[in-house]
Amino acid sequence: MNKKFVEQYIKMLNNLDGLLVKAAAHADANKFDVNNFVTDRLAVDMLPFARQIQIACDTAKLAVASFSFSEAPKFEDNEKTIAELRERIKKTLDFLKSKVEADFSKFKDAKYAPFWANGMWLDGESYFYEHAMPNFYFHVQTAYAILRTRGVNVGKADYIGALNFQK
Amino acid sequence: MNKKFVEQYIKMLNNLDGLLVKAAAHADANKFDVNNFVTDRLAVDMLPFARQIQIACDTAKLAVASFSFSEAPKFEDNEKTIAELRERIKKTLDFLKSKVEADFSKFKDAKYAPFWANGMWLDGESYFYEHAMPNFYFHVQTAYAILRTRGVNVGKADYIGALNFQK
Repeated sequence: MNKKFVEQYIKMLNNLDGLLVKAAAHADANKFDVNNFVTDRLAVDMLPFARQIQIACDTAKLAVASFSFSEAPKFEDNEKTIAELRERIKKTLDFLKSKVEADFSKFKDAKYAPFWANGMWLDGESYFYEHAMPNFYFHVQTAYAILRTRGVNVGKADYIGALNFQK
Repeated sequence: MNKKFVEQYIKMLNNLDGLLVKAAAHADANKFDVNNFVTDRLAVDMLPFARQIQIACDTAKLAVASFSFSEAPKFEDNEKTIAELRERIKKTLDFLKSKVEADFSKFKDAKYAPFWANGMWLDGESYFYEHAMPNFYFHVQTAYAILRTRGVNVGKADYIGALNFQK
């Protein structure tokens, strides 16, 4: 693994921030408070929009911290507005952008040992493929789906972002 | 890159198949035709359920073919029932399972050059991170979200699947 996976997290979090900007434009145009999205849910028994953003940020943050054997910054999970959620994304991006290639030289030794796994752990590669990627995309996409189903003018290009094509 | 990314596609496609099984059980219990899901959409201007499954399968199939420099099997995109979509997943799984580690020894030389990019291309690593992963998860998660919002008894554990924990 190299730093490309961090660059992809950075890209996707920037895309996610772009979704929030479009949500704000949509709310303005339709004269409602954009912060109504913060507690909105795709289904009544799913986590609210704010949690989708927080967990997406944290999945990226904790993976990058684990794979670089560094400490992740702690955030309070107390965001109540879209502006605060954008700030959460920005703080996460700041942490991700602080990493350099050499920080990931020992990624294969990384472990994922969540408290609920009772001492069991995933090795670095399993952590990356089985959790760090699918869990991140799950929450980004659920946030996207909330906005998309509420009529915000977002499409898959906003989710995927620009591809780094060569000629 | 090693074959772990293929194993993850296999796992997720099995999870996706499990969602279809739960959808059928839900339809039975509620006395409606499970095939009503085939044309269902998360939003009226999004692709239908069948296309989400087809594109998820094809994203995995084409990535594995590209990274192993082999030919992907062609499918017709003519599935009209959940049973046929399950068969589509199975045929995709058969292709994925046919690959061995050595097939991916030249993955870095792989390119992604979709017809719409007018001759431009992504290198193997960019293809993997910027398209093969996010596009796959986008469509798996959209299929999940359709079922989830319609009351099918699926949760994130069905999406993520069992983690290969060690003790």
